[in-house]
Amino acid sequence: MTDKTIHPDACVVGVDFGTLSGRAVVVRVRDGAELGTAVHDYSHGVVDRALPRSGKALPPEWALQVPSDYVDVLRTAVPQAVEAAGVAPELVIGIGTDFTACTMVPVTTDGTPLCELPEFADNPHAYIKLWRHHAAQPQADRINDLAAQRKEAWLPRYGGLISSEWEFAKGLQVLEEAPEVYEAMAHWVEAADWIVWQLTGEYTRNACTAGYKGIHQDGAYPSEEFLAALNPAFAKFVADKLDHPLSPLAGSAGTLTAEAAAWTGLPQGIAVSVGNVDAHVTAPAAQAVEPGQMVAIMGTSTCHVMSGDVLREVPGMCGVVDGGIVAGLWGYEAGQSGVGDIFAWFVKNQVPPAYHEQARERGLTVHELLTELSATQAVGEHGLIALDWHSGNRSVLVDHELSGVVLGQTLATRAEDVYRALLEATAFGTRVIVDAFTDSGVPVTELVIAGGLIKNKLLMQIYSDVTNLPLSVIGSAQGPALGSAMHAAVAAGAFADIREAAGAMGSVQRHVFQPIPENVDAYERLFLEYQELHDHFGRGGNDVMRRLRKFRRDALEGKKN
Amino acid sequence: MTDKTIHPDACVVGVDFGTLSGRAVVVRVRDGAELGTAVHDYSHGVVDRALPRSGKALPPEWALQVPSDYVDVLRTAVPQAVEAAGVAPELVIGIGTDFTACTMVPVTTDGTPLCELPEFADNPHAYIKLWRHHAAQPQADRINDLAAQRKEAWLPRYGGLISSEWEFAKGLQVLEEAPEVYEAMAHWVEAADWIVWQLTGEYTRNACTAGYKGIHQDGAYPSEEFLAALNPAFAKFVADKLDHPLSPLAGSAGTLTAEAAAWTGLPQGIAVSVGNVDAHVTAPAAQAVEPGQMVAIMGTSTCHVMSGDVLREVPGMCGVVDGGIVAGLWGYEAGQSGVGDIFAWFVKNQVPPAYHEQARERGLTVHELLTELSATQAVGEHGLIALDWHSGNRSVLVDHELSGVVLGQTLATRAEDVYRALLEATAFGTRVIVDAFTDSGVPVTELVIAGGLIKNKLLMQIYSDVTNLPLSVIGSAQGPALGSAMHAAVAAGAFADIREAAGAMGSVQRHVFQPIPENVDAYERLFLEYQELHDHFGRGGNDVMRRLRKFRRDALEGKKN
Repeated sequence: MTDKTIHPDACVVGVDFGTLSGRAVVVRVRDGAELGTAVHDYSHGVVDRALPRSGKALPPEWALQVPSDYVDVLRTAVPQAVEAAGVAPELVIGIGTDFTACTMVPVTTDGTPLCELPEFADNPHAYIKLWRHHAAQPQADRINDLAAQRKEAWLPRYGGLISSEWEFAKGLQVLEEAPEVYEAMAHWVEAADWIVWQLTGEYTRNACTAGYKGIHQDGAYPSEEFLAALNPAFAKFVADKLDHPLSPLAGSAGTLTAEAAAWTGLPQGIAVSVGNVDAHVTAPAAQAVEPGQMVAIMGTSTCHVMSGDVLREVPGMCGVVDGGIVAGLWGYEAGQSGVGDIFAWFVKNQVPPAYHEQARERGLTVHELLTELSATQAVGEHGLIALDWHSGNRSVLVDHELSGVVLGQTLATRAEDVYRALLEATAFGTRVIVDAFTDSGVPVTELVIAGGLIKNKLLMQIYSDVTNLPLSVIGSAQGPALGSAMHAAVAAGAFADIREAAGAMGSVQRHVFQPIPENVDAYERLFLEYQELHDHFGRGGNDVMRRLRKFRRDALEGKKN
Repeated sequence: MTDKTIHPDACVVGVDFGTLSGRAVVVRVRDGAELGTAVHDYSHGVVDRALPRSGKALPPEWALQVPSDYVDVLRTAVPQAVEAAGVAPELVIGIGTDFTACTMVPVTTDGTPLCELPEFADNPHAYIKLWRHHAAQPQADRINDLAAQRKEAWLPRYGGLISSEWEFAKGLQVLEEAPEVYEAMAHWVEAADWIVWQLTGEYTRNACTAGYKGIHQDGAYPSEEFLAALNPAFAKFVADKLDHPLSPLAGSAGTLTAEAAAWTGLPQGIAVSVGNVDAHVTAPAAQAVEPGQMVAIMGTSTCHVMSGDVLREVPGMCGVVDGGIVAGLWGYEAGQSGVGDIFAWFVKNQVPPAYHEQARERGLTVHELLTELSATQAVGEHGLIALDWHSGNRSVLVDHELSGVVLGQTLATRAEDVYRALLEATAFGTRVIVDAFTDSGVPVTELVIAGGLIKNKLLMQIYSDVTNLPLSVIGSAQGPALGSAMHAAVAAGAFADIREAAGAMGSVQRHVFQPIPENVDAYERLFLEYQELHDHFGRGGNDVMRRLRKFRRDALEGKKN
């Protein structure tokens, strides 16, 4: 530790806000030991069918959240983690948080979410738009078309395509579908920054999401002229709703307020670090801060982050931001919009009773049972190939109107066959990303895996075989929360910077999985099949997926009338 | 009735041998009233994983049956049906049977199936190859290539492609994979004829299967020269294993032996009609004997039969045979290799527990529940499109290496969505066939539906909407068995011919379903999507399905070594 005045048993708290729950972890500053953890499930989860109170139905592609669910994590998971750690709250010197990115909160000047105002309680646009809210695709399409036409300099920094998940597309959707909400919102705030606002009482805007999701590049946002061309009423979007001084990662956002201290049971006045993104904060937690070390955080979706010493335009990357992960290197981000989500969907919707019964009898999860059953297969034995686009594609295609495919089913196809094909499809999806980076001059030499899916050893081996790369595995089960805690330690002055914190508090097991040569060969030919289908359905060979979305919208529209 | 000496309450028995069970029905001759019925499930069902006694594993694509299962139907279902009918056995004047076609039995000179000989009990090739045994595709490919190259005149009579399901491909597979079985077999017999042999004690070969499945056209089989070019040892296949005098439909095959009378409880010496095919015999049962009336017998698979007054070459038809359905007209046959099979596979393999529970609580089948849930959807609402090739394609593509596809899945896709998409896919499959006939100058003006799937009204409406044709429905729930009974009545001399029997004993409800114009339009655009995928994956745009089969074979082969 840099600051020798800090207590040798000093701790920090990291809180990771995911899609369905928030997790707090108490970490000892001197060695990164995780002393206690607790999870709180959001009581409203993902709101994608109907608004909570009124029951008002939501259109397809919508995904909202309720802000009080986040505060509940501070009230419950944080004190529970401290209690589980068995440390005196006085030993906690800082708190750091990370969040899903481009989860957007429309707020008043004092940070009150609009959905908490009685006049907006029944307006879907007043709620938080979760990262995976995909109903702003028409707006994203227009942003992309206009930016391409105007040759906007920022466009290549995002692989040539802006996602419907990001700040601008969602903001434009609010303007065009609920002008009254747009008018009422003082700020369009990343949830990552909103939660910090709740802790410190002050609005800070972190440079990471501003860069990756807010189109902030080389010191500027898209111009008023550009915004006006999208919609004249959108011209002042940056000036009125978005602009705010940017705070660098691992900086201090302020100190814990009395109110937040009461929620959390932590000492008032301790350091609060600037808001973080779950994926990016995981890289230092896994000691993956050098060029070529790609971290894949595999959970409901997968986010890939990697630092690079050169600026390159990688097709379909989500973004590249100067110092986006660690200071002094270009931080690259890419991702797959559905991974664990797809496996969970499959288990919930396509696995027959006999498997559930067998799993229950044997004390396994259905995932574990299907993994066990499919692990004995040789590569290619199931005869299937799948496209992992059930939640769209945020990778090289950046198109949320794409959808999932399973091809090759016969009357002999069993649940474990499809399950394995879906595991493999996500590995092929990662392979597409790795290839895009390597082909663009930012070579990937090691995959470092973090996130909940680490525990599936078959999945890990498949990823190693499909990418033909050694797989390292983060040492912590709570990568993002650990990374947030490290940022808190830096904000509290315990370390000079995040690299130093990574060295002291991060952990990784190197090369736990190695590619098996015969599997590499067998997957190579399956990957060629994946690629051909990927390009056919994703690059204009057959736009059937987009048309099916349109037919679906037409059908629902026709039913309403 | 033609013969006025026949008792006014005289009955006939029809027995329909399906894929999983045999059904007997007792029918009054004068009016077709179905007085009693009984079903017997084959105790071995479809043998597709391992041989019954030894447990010897079977390769993929195999589907065998055990001959004693068929005899058990005569022993149990026939007497039970007579008892259920409450008629004196003495009133029964004839018995007729129908069978799945190209279900092939290798037998000795006295008709003993080779698998019943101790020396062959453990040899898979000595068993009955069920119609849907698909492991002879390499042989079928060679037959097709050679026939196309030699411009064999018979090839266009089968839509330009011979199926791996048929007599020649399966016969060649026996020769090449089990020459000892080939050597030992005195006849390669259609199960349709084998069961008649059991009833009469004499081998007769029916002209219908010989024409449709045995490549018998214009009085001849493929030449020795052709066969020798496939494999020199195959040159005498026709002469040694197949050739036998042909018997016309509705003719008499002989009379019931004492042994068969003992099995069935029917009077010795009554008329036994020539063997029939389940689908073809259904046309007169539904009074569909005029040109333009296409009968679709919808069960595990669908067979389409239609009489025409002209000879045309229809792409992908299964065959056209002079008098193949009724004398004096060309009998056309087409088909879809998987229909109810696909729905059953889906319910067994891809429907989660909650649906099974709900169905149980409400006293519904899972099929009924899924149908009810999906019936409220507007056309296109589920956003999916499927290819119904889980059991290959025997329609215009005639390729059993093709496989099923479901495209368009999202994290919101539910079981009922996929179920409906599969129902629709099979309707699109029928549409492809209807279009092929109409485009070839054999117009289809009415669809007459028979078979077990009639009871699904949603499915019926979808077929009417997708084909834009009125749907008539057979009056009997036991179409094939009723048709067989009608043939027995003709064989017993009660009617002059099958048309007269159809008038007296057949029944149909005309135009029960009419196309709904808005659905017709909505399905038209979905059908275009189906067609594009159909042609892409089925006509060489992307041969991924064939390659996946190869990878699967390679993977299994590699595991063995």
